[in-house]
Amino acid sequence: MTEKTALVPRTHTTPPAKFSHGVKKGNILQVAGQVGFLPSGEGGPPTPAGPGLREQALQTLANVKAVLEEGGASWDDVMMIRVYLTDVDHFAEMNEIYNAYFEEQALTAPPAARTTVYVGLPAGLLVEIDVLAVLG
Amino acid sequence: MTEKTALVPRTHTTPPAKFSHGVKKGNILQVAGQVGFLPSGEGGPPTPAGPGLREQALQTLANVKAVLEEGGASWDDVMMIRVYLTDVDHFAEMNEIYNAYFEEQALTAPPAARTTVYVGLPAGLLVEIDVLAVLG
Amino acid sequence: MTEKTALVPRTHTTPPAKFSHGVKKGNILQVAGQVGFLPSGEGGPPTPAGPGLREQALQTLANVKAVLEEGGASWDDVMMIRVYLTDVDHFAEMNEIYNAYFEEQALTAPPAARTTVYVGLPAGLLVEIDVLAVLG
Repeated sequence: MTEKTALVPRTHTTPPAKFSHGVKKGNILQVAGQVGFLPSGEGGPPTPAGPGLREQALQTLANVKAVLEEGGASWDDVMMIRVYLTDVDHFAEMNEIYNAYFEEQALTAPPAARTTVYVGLPAGLLVEIDVLAVLG
Repeated sequence: MTEKTALVPRTHTTPPAKFSHGVKKGNILQVAGQVGFLPSGEGGPPTPAGPGLREQALQTLANVKAVLEEGGASWDDVMMIRVYLTDVDHFAEMNEIYNAYFEEQALTAPPAARTTVYVGLPAGLLVEIDVLAVLG
Repeated sequence: MTEKTALVPRTHTTPPAKFSHGVKKGNILQVAGQVGFLPSGEGGPPTPAGPGLREQALQTLANVKAVLEEGGASWDDVMMIRVYLTDVDHFAEMNEIYNAYFEEQALTAPPAARTTVYVGLPAGLLVEIDVLAVLG
């Protein structure tokens, strides 16, 4: 029997429903849809980084990374990155941010696969990202 | 060689194309996008539960669960739940329904990760859900 | 330590950002969101097959298949097919194309699970598809 464990970074805001920010079972690690909320404050409501796409996207990627690390994984273990944007006009800027971010991460494995689609998100949110990782 | 098997609950309506409601291979189980169709009737067209989000969402969750059980799995094995809604204004109500549903399921493992996005769906459908499970 | 490898068919256009068209690690293979771009030409920009949904969808499926084959996999190994369309009115036609395509592929395993949702895509693109496969 392989155990399923919840991955809950202490800096993360409480999810708005009964789901885990990440789960790991065997060699599979799934990170829930992360958004650009700043580290949880003292009793305040979740607040996204801002004011623009860049700040939100970088905070979102940091939030994903924190869940990966909580599970003993890194970006090198990530197989798939799902990027949800709200505006097709953000595609080029998001790619710039994405490339610069992963350049800084100094990956040692090939980059993950990715799908980017344009959807609706709650007011104020410009980007959401979830990832699937396979541990080595 | 690990065999891939189709998971097809008898109560489910026939998919609108050549896909399986669920498949299992080794310890990985994937449930296709389920909607709130009532158990298939005698020759009638697929009909969603109604009239509101609550009925559709609960039927959708029941349809997912039936596929999981067809594969010998349960909600405890689910790693990721993808929730597709059509209206951002349904978020709060969906979370209430979701929390109450999983409270009743009496999970013994941590809750799955989740991503919720707002997309278009065929007329009459308010919610679609697919899940990835890893068997223990 | 299981190695993660990138799957990059020679005919594929360069991704618009630092991601891989596909990755494989252990028995898990993930194909990135593929669109209907024709095989990459000499220095020209990526160009989608056309003029209609049929040509784009078939090219998209061919692009997915090329990534699977690069990883030593086939459609029979695919667990989940995510279909992103831009127009709910394309559902029936997409299902016809999908069924005819998979009829021709002469699968020996049960068809994969599938989710179809309607999202925004960059101008000119009508369909995007990504898949998750488990190797046998």
